Amino acid sequence: MYTLGEIAKFIDATVVGDSTINIESIASINIAKNNQLTYIATPKYKQALITSKASAVILNKELLDDCPTNALIVDDVYLSFAKITHYFKKTITHQPGIHPSAKIHNAIIANNCVIGENVIIGNNCKIGANSIIENNVVIGDNTHLHSNVAILHSCSIGNNVVISPGVVIGSEGFGNARDKDGCWHAIVHLGNVIIGDDVTIGANTTIDRGTLEDTQIHNGVRLDNLIQIAHNVIIGENTAIAASTAIAGSAVLGKRCMIGGMVGIIGHLSICDDVIISGKSTVDKHIKKPGIYTGIIPLMPHKQWQNVGIWLVKLDKIVKYLNIKLKKIKD
Amino acid sequence: MYTLGEIAKFIDATVVGDSTINIESIASINIAKNNQLTYIATPKYKQALITSKASAVILNKELLDDCPTNALIVDDVYLSFAKITHYFKKTITHQPGIHPSAKIHNAIIANNCVIGENVIIGNNCKIGANSIIENNVVIGDNTHLHSNVAILHSCSIGNNVVISPGVVIGSEGFGNARDKDGCWHAIVHLGNVIIGDDVTIGANTTIDRGTLEDTQIHNGVRLDNLIQIAHNVIIGENTAIAASTAIAGSAVLGKRCMIGGMVGIIGHLSICDDVIISGKSTVDKHIKKPGIYTGIIPLMPHKQWQNVGIWLVKLDKIVKYLNIKLKKIKD
Amino acid sequence: MYTLGEIAKFIDATVVGDSTINIESIASINIAKNNQLTYIATPKYKQALITSKASAVILNKELLDDCPTNALIVDDVYLSFAKITHYFKKTITHQPGIHPSAKIHNAIIANNCVIGENVIIGNNCKIGANSIIENNVVIGDNTHLHSNVAILHSCSIGNNVVISPGVVIGSEGFGNARDKDGCWHAIVHLGNVIIGDDVTIGANTTIDRGTLEDTQIHNGVRLDNLIQIAHNVIIGENTAIAASTAIAGSAVLGKRCMIGGMVGIIGHLSICDDVIISGKSTVDKHIKKPGIYTGIIPLMPHKQWQNVGIWLVKLDKIVKYLNIKLKKIKD
Repeated sequence: MYTLGEIAKFIDATVVGDSTINIESIASINIAKNNQLTYIATPKYKQALITSKASAVILNKELLDDCPTNALIVDDVYLSFAKITHYFKKTITHQPGIHPSAKIHNAIIANNCVIGENVIIGNNCKIGANSIIENNVVIGDNTHLHSNVAILHSCSIGNNVVISPGVVIGSEGFGNARDKDGCWHAIVHLGNVIIGDDVTIGANTTIDRGTLEDTQIHNGVRLDNLIQIAHNVIIGENTAIAASTAIAGSAVLGKRCMIGGMVGIIGHLSICDDVIISGKSTVDKHIKKPGIYTGIIPLMPHKQWQNVGIWLVKLDKIVKYLNIKLKKIKD
Repeated sequence: MYTLGEIAKFIDATVVGDSTINIESIASINIAKNNQLTYIATPKYKQALITSKASAVILNKELLDDCPTNALIVDDVYLSFAKITHYFKKTITHQPGIHPSAKIHNAIIANNCVIGENVIIGNNCKIGANSIIENNVVIGDNTHLHSNVAILHSCSIGNNVVISPGVVIGSEGFGNARDKDGCWHAIVHLGNVIIGDDVTIGANTTIDRGTLEDTQIHNGVRLDNLIQIAHNVIIGENTAIAASTAIAGSAVLGKRCMIGGMVGIIGHLSICDDVIISGKSTVDKHIKKPGIYTGIIPLMPHKQWQNVGIWLVKLDKIVKYLNIKLKKIKD
Repeated sequence: MYTLGEIAKFIDATVVGDSTINIESIASINIAKNNQLTYIATPKYKQALITSKASAVILNKELLDDCPTNALIVDDVYLSFAKITHYFKKTITHQPGIHPSAKIHNAIIANNCVIGENVIIGNNCKIGANSIIENNVVIGDNTHLHSNVAILHSCSIGNNVVISPGVVIGSEGFGNARDKDGCWHAIVHLGNVIIGDDVTIGANTTIDRGTLEDTQIHNGVRLDNLIQIAHNVIIGENTAIAASTAIAGSAVLGKRCMIGGMVGIIGHLSICDDVIISGKSTVDKHIKKPGIYTGIIPLMPHKQWQNVGIWLVKLDKIVKYLNIKLKKIKD
């Protein structure tokens, strides 16, 4: 916990309002409450600013008139936000074996596991050898972690979950702010990963924690091997995703979807319930209607592809040329 | 081992035939033998049903007349199969260190390794630190596992094999049956992974075990990093596969193929010997002739792509329009 | 260290020159110096051969006249090179815990870590549980390795670096020579991985060591999860790469590039500074001008794609047909 004045010093900001108030945590502008700090990096969220319940907002001076609460004025809002996240980072102590504060109910813990402070593990769980469960993780009943699994701090796993070897849950999201010199400043991701009941997760899959809110994997979801789930992604109930697919930050998937292998889903897109995406496709737009969607180049002999490829990149010019030609002939 | 009557109770099936016979294991319909149970989920395998040597078959009542042996009648065959696999799952006991029943011939075992019951490790092997070798795994001579490797139960690795850090061999296949409510029921994969001699496997690559039969990686195969090999895939001798490629379930690759990086191979396809697939392509059909095959979109400036993309999704309409136009003009 | 005569015996080569000279290591033809061996596998590097400072060159007899130094004449140069790399392989001894020769300055080492001979770890470092640091690795100050990380021998990591769980650095590159029978012979990769300051590396990402020279990740680079960086790749300062991207061998990326997720970059290509590549694109040519580049198929309903796909593979034939048609009509 810091006062607003202390935070202003960390990021070299000008306080407009009460610098003595306490800031307990950071939240997104539309959900921030009392004793929380938020930020507005683009004027398109101006309406959310006007109605914000946050105790303070990091902003550019151009938006000051629309700020209903205390303000921290800076030049580069996103960079300032990135810097301030580091002050709210949870420090993890490393201790051998099982921390005495961990509550483990009738579970089998294989050897070389490290289990952190305040971890809770439910009934009939199995934790495979060489797995790491960091501080404050909560695991339900009948859940099975295979070997070499890493569950990072504060994440939560439901009942009847199976997690395959090499899975990483709660890794840092890939969020960085760039300064004037082109250098990146990491955002410390302060959200967690919340995994529901009856979920299975394949080998070496990675699930990043949310930036401020949580990445969510709902009940009954099936994830295959080597899948990447970025920060703040939400995956609806009973959706199944095949291997080597990557889902970018803040994408939202509906219920009962079936996503093929090696699909790429662009960030911030939403996919409605009951959508099927063919393997290797790229989801480059919102999907609002259930159905099957595809977007790949069919395989062909390489020589044929060389000929086709020449025209693929000129398709607009072909169409333009034809329009002119056909018009002329008509005339 | 269960009697057919016990199995019928597990999945709420009606027995037609002798409910006292013993079922030792489950096998595919075309190879199941005496004391084995099989299933037929689609009428297209009717011919295999008629000639099946299995002791019992799970089927819909519509196929009962074609069943030459004992039958278990259910509504949803695939779901019943998924449920029954759980009764044949091998339970793995977790013990620290090297199990006394393991036979290790003149090998170097680095520290924090866990080596299960009845494991056999050949001469001149090296097992890297923090690696896990589960029960009943067999490893040949001169094989080198790097650190953090997980070989799951009952898999078999040949001679002169190199396995890089973070590799997972024998993870569960991604097979699930869906019930009426849209919930997934995992199939326990009862096959293994069989890896031949002189194979190399790159870092963090994952190879799933087969559903009922084995996933096979034949002699001399080269696998790069972060590759996904799904259940029941067979990869022929001396085939080389570059990084981040994913091969879906039951695909069969021939000998001496060269598969580029980030290639996706759709499930159940077969590729003949001596095929080269360019990086990033999608194999969406069987390949029956050796040669080089490609299917990618060439890179272009984003603005050009935006113009091209508009017409790419309308290519069929362009062709149709032109056919009409050109016909009219001719007339 | 071997004499040239000894090396000739290993690969069954004919020495032309002084077989008593000592060979200390192997290097590429353009940078090899005194006491180093090199090879020339294709006549296109003939100019580099003529000016080479190497003490000896493996070559075909056709290139002997252009060789300014001692020569090892063989039939298959690349295969001979692959075989000879095995004699220069560094052998790693496996010892439990922290080797007494390791110099660890004021760092926190979590449990079950293995730290090899002559490792140097700087001030204020944290090494997560179950991580492996092989012989001769050097790590700077304030660097944080999460759990289950593997840093293979002789690699070097800068200051303020964050390495996520499951990362593998220094794995063998995917280089193999094929013999007459179609069998692959692995090249032992003798280069290292050099990682600069202020780099972050995401979960389960893999970075291969160079063949003879080093794979380089320059200061300020950001790598997301499940990325593959092949041997000899160079990534310029402050370049950021999103998840599940794969970069093939010897590709060179400039500074301040932003590479989307699931991008594939073909080997030996170079990308200039300040290039943005859209997610899922394939970089199939050199990029010499800053800007945004894209190459994907937009997603469409599957039925539409089926119609479009038919014509996609015939685009060259459509254009040819139209040219003929339109010409005829003009006449």
